[in-house]
Amino acid sequence: MDSTDRGIKVATLRWRDDALEMIDQRVLPASFEYRRYDCAQGVASAIQEMVVRGAPAIGVAAAFGITLEARRLISLSQTKFNSSMETGFDMLANSRPTAVNLFWSLARMSKAWMKVFQHQPDTVAAHLLQEAHEIYAEDIRINRRLGDYGQQLLKDGARVLTHCNAGALATAGHGTALGIIRSAVEAGKKISVIADETRPFLQGARLTAWEMVQEEIPVTLITDNMAGYMMNAGEVDAVIVGADRVAANGDVANKIGTYMLAVLAKRHEIPFYVACPLSTIDLDLPEGKMIPIEERSLEEVKGFRDCQWAAQGAGIRNPAFDITPAELVSALITEKGVINAPDKMKLQGLFN
Amino acid sequence: MDSTDRGIKVATLRWRDDALEMIDQRVLPASFEYRRYDCAQGVASAIQEMVVRGAPAIGVAAAFGITLEARRLISLSQTKFNSSMETGFDMLANSRPTAVNLFWSLARMSKAWMKVFQHQPDTVAAHLLQEAHEIYAEDIRINRRLGDYGQQLLKDGARVLTHCNAGALATAGHGTALGIIRSAVEAGKKISVIADETRPFLQGARLTAWEMVQEEIPVTLITDNMAGYMMNAGEVDAVIVGADRVAANGDVANKIGTYMLAVLAKRHEIPFYVACPLSTIDLDLPEGKMIPIEERSLEEVKGFRDCQWAAQGAGIRNPAFDITPAELVSALITEKGVINAPDKMKLQGLFN
Repeated sequence: MDSTDRGIKVATLRWRDDALEMIDQRVLPASFEYRRYDCAQGVASAIQEMVVRGAPAIGVAAAFGITLEARRLISLSQTKFNSSMETGFDMLANSRPTAVNLFWSLARMSKAWMKVFQHQPDTVAAHLLQEAHEIYAEDIRINRRLGDYGQQLLKDGARVLTHCNAGALATAGHGTALGIIRSAVEAGKKISVIADETRPFLQGARLTAWEMVQEEIPVTLITDNMAGYMMNAGEVDAVIVGADRVAANGDVANKIGTYMLAVLAKRHEIPFYVACPLSTIDLDLPEGKMIPIEERSLEEVKGFRDCQWAAQGAGIRNPAFDITPAELVSALITEKGVINAPDKMKLQGLFN
Repeated sequence: MDSTDRGIKVATLRWRDDALEMIDQRVLPASFEYRRYDCAQGVASAIQEMVVRGAPAIGVAAAFGITLEARRLISLSQTKFNSSMETGFDMLANSRPTAVNLFWSLARMSKAWMKVFQHQPDTVAAHLLQEAHEIYAEDIRINRRLGDYGQQLLKDGARVLTHCNAGALATAGHGTALGIIRSAVEAGKKISVIADETRPFLQGARLTAWEMVQEEIPVTLITDNMAGYMMNAGEVDAVIVGADRVAANGDVANKIGTYMLAVLAKRHEIPFYVACPLSTIDLDLPEGKMIPIEERSLEEVKGFRDCQWAAQGAGIRNPAFDITPAELVSALITEKGVINAPDKMKLQGLFN
């Protein structure tokens, strides 16, 4: 689970001394700290509190989370082990509602469990650890394939606007939207990034800008409300974002503000790309409006960390995601290739 | 200069004991403090540092600023007085570039000066003070007339999205965009407000929300990137914003992010109104792209006050305004009435 040999400078998650360690993304970039987790409840809280975030990273964290639970319960009788494991799966599944990778990953871990269901807990735990490692490694492989397909869409010199953080920190490594940028740079192209700060959690200002600075890829930070200005000024050649869930018709749930960028990109005839591994596509949901949108704590909007600025007494809303209709998506970029003007047929085709 | 009798609870600016006092809008809503100014340089700095902001309020502040300068220079010889006054005018004119009310107000004060140019400094100072008081009082009268016209566009129960702060705090009192809300409420309508927080200076979260809470008008705070979500959810009946400068063809310069709202409103067939007193209209500039856009300190985007969150090493942009083309403006709301689908002819007609 060492990813340094793959050109990823920082491991978002790592398995070390029989526990899961994750970078605390709440305190980046001011501090760089790993936190250690040894049970499902701990990992579920870490997902809920956004120690770890980003659809693919959440999926990987959950896989290790249920593995840790199995290891913790190893001395129980098989019956008690089974029922406690069910509780662990539920805790993880209830941590966040929008990103489908979480459910995809838990379903895959459940399937792995079923394969060795008759065995003793220690065998189950060992098998689950192997599966979690495989999900981790696969995530990086997928991101690199996705990046290779996506980078072909970018010209040398392209100025790419991105929102939130769909980078190495949102995955096991390399990243999805930022993975495309990395792959383009590896291919010898000169790429520059414009990062929306992404209120309220500021993933753009804190995480995307930090990742790009680490790799010396030029990055310019703007507030979320400057994207239209930049497009109108002719300073944006493409928009690339990640996805938390893509419905069967190609509608995309992603970080709040993505929809606004898609509408602006359409007006300015700028291509709007969505980077999404197949694990993000949910064929069970016909349309985007059926994707559950998480409303997070209102405290997040009142300020940031200890710095509070909102007038007291005002109501607050905090939807964490929005839906971009497929008609505004120029292409989905997956590990199986680029899907131009996505629709139901094309998405189903990916899985055949 | 007491505005309490006009239903304005807080005086943004007030003339007290021979000085100009202004609410320090940088520290609202955490503290409510007046700062005192007794010369043009002080007022110019206050405008530059955004102690006072909002196009009409800047205009009124500048009028008192040049008055204070005349009073400060009262013992000089007429020749020295004249040259020092010119310096005072220049300082104020150079404080901020985008809002035209500043230049309109200084031109009016200059004209008032010219009327008594042959008189002694003390006579000039007295005459300028009278003119500044008149500009102040007129601003409130104009906002009330504008509000009365504008409120007729709002149905009972309307949910109005606004950006930045075009309220009492942006004017001598009542406000332009929020003046329309106040007038609608006075007319017995139940209105609720959705306030964009308006990064980086957070005028929506700090000032608009605070103003509405003071008057018990329901207000809901969102981050700038949530506006599209709210419109798509059918939770916005109208958008009303202020303006810093309107070109002869109806293009509108206003706080960064306004353009984005106009594009979204168009897509959702939501009326997009711009509240602007005639002093905001600049017939000398044919089109919006000729309006100078202020780029403010990059520090503003790195965080807020002492709270810094941006990754070090990233580039930053900070355009403070953007241009909304006239085609996206449903109507301009002025003290002379509502101008639907504004164009050059209609705007010229306002001044005849």
